[in-house]
Amino acid sequence: MATNDPIASLISLLSRLPGVGRRTAARLAFHILEGDAQYAAALGQALETIHGEVTRCECCGNYGAESLCAICRDPRRDDSVICVVAKVPDLMALEALGSFRGRYHVLHGLLAPLDGIGPDQLPLDALERRIGDAKVKEIIVATPLNVEGEATALYVADALASLPVRVSRIAAGVPHGGELEFTDQVTLGRALEDRRSVR
Amino acid sequence: MATNDPIASLISLLSRLPGVGRRTAARLAFHILEGDAQYAAALGQALETIHGEVTRCECCGNYGAESLCAICRDPRRDDSVICVVAKVPDLMALEALGSFRGRYHVLHGLLAPLDGIGPDQLPLDALERRIGDAKVKEIIVATPLNVEGEATALYVADALASLPVRVSRIAAGVPHGGELEFTDQVTLGRALEDRRSVR
Repeated sequence: MATNDPIASLISLLSRLPGVGRRTAARLAFHILEGDAQYAAALGQALETIHGEVTRCECCGNYGAESLCAICRDPRRDDSVICVVAKVPDLMALEALGSFRGRYHVLHGLLAPLDGIGPDQLPLDALERRIGDAKVKEIIVATPLNVEGEATALYVADALASLPVRVSRIAAGVPHGGELEFTDQVTLGRALEDRRSVR
Repeated sequence: MATNDPIASLISLLSRLPGVGRRTAARLAFHILEGDAQYAAALGQALETIHGEVTRCECCGNYGAESLCAICRDPRRDDSVICVVAKVPDLMALEALGSFRGRYHVLHGLLAPLDGIGPDQLPLDALERRIGDAKVKEIIVATPLNVEGEATALYVADALASLPVRVSRIAAGVPHGGELEFTDQVTLGRALEDRRSVR
């Protein structure tokens, strides 16, 4: 197949997307080609400009169009709580909840010594500076409940131990709708250990 | 979510792709945003230009960069056989085989009276002209083996009945590796009916 064939090169580019194999890429390419030309142009434009239009917030690491993201600019957010997350989609999931009104700090990664990601690769200095500057009372560590997420949470807690803030961790337990019968042993063990009084 | 948020609009555009829901669109958008900017630009460029760069071949309906597609331009292809397919991906599947050396005719659709697609929407006049012009001896109808594909195959055979060409249909039967136990009754019935001598 010639490399100057525009369909073949579109299929080849699409097949580099995560979870998109050769067949899916071909299906997408033909859908785009046989569909609305305006849609293809709009999607193309959005992809071409996304890297230029989106930057990381200088303060928290969230994505935004300006040097400070919309959350950091918002004067109504609670300065006393910072929620530490591994990545922006996690921040978005928490924002979709609507109940957290504090600020965020995005690590853009987790400790993974085997992959060469050590504490120096995570923006913890910036977090310490934020705690020093402002009236921060609590850091909620909302990294995922897997090995890297837990290790990172412990590391963050240790790193902030000398500072006058409470460091908390999101609860681990049986998810909503979860059957105990089908819950893994680690989850069940933690749910039992972290049990709380009913009243 | 503000409509001038570039991430939100990219997610929204991606979620219009077939088989891509909101969550997958978000995953793709963040993958693109956190990945190579050159890749995003190349994919964007390919999408923006695909409609302008690709046209339908005037002769057979295949896609190509010029008024005649690469297959119609190729003087080594056999002019005596035309394979009729419903869509370009079907043509590509047959080309990937490598064993068919004739020409193609792409219908870009199938008869579907319930969806308002009648014989007039299919380029059968053009097929008849091609048969009249050239030394075509056989038309292989390779529309799919479903209701619309079969109806279209019958219609094509009827439409060409008065012309001096053989009209054939790709074989129906049990697919390679297929267990008879799990083969549907229609397929099994046809495989039995269309049985062939072993030697």
